[in-house]
Amino acid sequence: MVASALKKVPFFRGLTPREINQILSIAGVKHYAAGEMVFAKQDLGNNFFIVKTGRIKIFTTVGAEKRKTFAYLKKGDFFGEMSLLGGRVRSASAQAADDSELFVISKKNFKRLILENADFTLKLLHTLADRLNKCNKEVESMLFHNILGRLAEAILELSKDKHTKPVKMAIDQNELAQYLGTTRVPVCRAINTLKRSGVIDYRRGELIILNQARLRSIAGNAQ
Amino acid sequence: MVASALKKVPFFRGLTPREINQILSIAGVKHYAAGEMVFAKQDLGNNFFIVKTGRIKIFTTVGAEKRKTFAYLKKGDFFGEMSLLGGRVRSASAQAADDSELFVISKKNFKRLILENADFTLKLLHTLADRLNKCNKEVESMLFHNILGRLAEAILELSKDKHTKPVKMAIDQNELAQYLGTTRVPVCRAINTLKRSGVIDYRRGELIILNQARLRSIAGNAQ
Repeated sequence: MVASALKKVPFFRGLTPREINQILSIAGVKHYAAGEMVFAKQDLGNNFFIVKTGRIKIFTTVGAEKRKTFAYLKKGDFFGEMSLLGGRVRSASAQAADDSELFVISKKNFKRLILENADFTLKLLHTLADRLNKCNKEVESMLFHNILGRLAEAILELSKDKHTKPVKMAIDQNELAQYLGTTRVPVCRAINTLKRSGVIDYRRGELIILNQARLRSIAGNAQ
Repeated sequence: MVASALKKVPFFRGLTPREINQILSIAGVKHYAAGEMVFAKQDLGNNFFIVKTGRIKIFTTVGAEKRKTFAYLKKGDFFGEMSLLGGRVRSASAQAADDSELFVISKKNFKRLILENADFTLKLLHTLADRLNKCNKEVESMLFHNILGRLAEAILELSKDKHTKPVKMAIDQNELAQYLGTTRVPVCRAINTLKRSGVIDYRRGELIILNQARLRSIAGNAQ
């Protein structure tokens, strides 16, 4: 039963039955209710996680008020590798954004997987390179872009797996502000600018992309 | 002769003679004069590099004027893996900051190394995790810190392998400004603040850390 569940998770799609069985034999499954913390920044890191169902938010807090969302992870995405590879405490917090099920793999088994399962290791390398690339681009973006360009980039990133036409997604202004690591007021202003120029519509927590090409150009022009 | 050179490069220190020979058999050595470009952002990426001697600057440019230095790499550090793992163009530029010699490994041999040499792969994973961690911290820092805290962090980062007492390093204000991705004026102002409070001295391109604990606290307080 767990084997067939694993096959539905994109992470495992390229793996042979033997490799899936290897991971299966060492992974537990754990349920997290929406809002529940998986781990907090500065916790000792002992486990690696792969999302089976649901949605996990990776974020950091500075002081009591300031928050920055790094990513929303979905089915097949993994997290928790950073403190296992660095041998250190968690560098960010992870929280279930929706009810979620996670495959849980211990530090010891994670290290065994790396040494014994080349596909797993390649997947890990590619994902770390992608995340580093995305992070470097964010640093660039923060240095060289205005809030409008960064909002346009964030909307494109957050909607990249939505395939309706036009693209619609549910997201509130606080979430968008946290994704940009800023407060609501400048985000609200930037949303209104995009609305007035007919690029997006936004009402009651639903964002609709009306002009994808313009949105790309606003994100890209800023670069 | 190249084998003994390899043993002096930190990257190879943990490897067995057999593993060193494997890398040796597939790596070329290339010389770059100070100021020479190794590759430019948007170039197609075909090679992986390990620094044998010298110093390599990794940076990005936006428009004609704006620059952001991501890192200075030294003996034993590697770069160029990003576009080989992602199969894409270079995400940043690399330039010899001093006269430098690089071990050059082709994309094909790089992929073979990953599959056949577990120590090489672990080294790669750890380094990517460290760089991602550093990048995430920089995003945090940019969102939540003032220029003074960021300058203090940059000075600590750039001087971390200097072991004189007090710590001294040669760096000009333009380099510092590029490291922070900003312009000279705010950096100059922040340097003067640190000088006035007796934390550093700075004259004619030489920076001296007078009070390491205070500097750490300014970098840390900002977090």
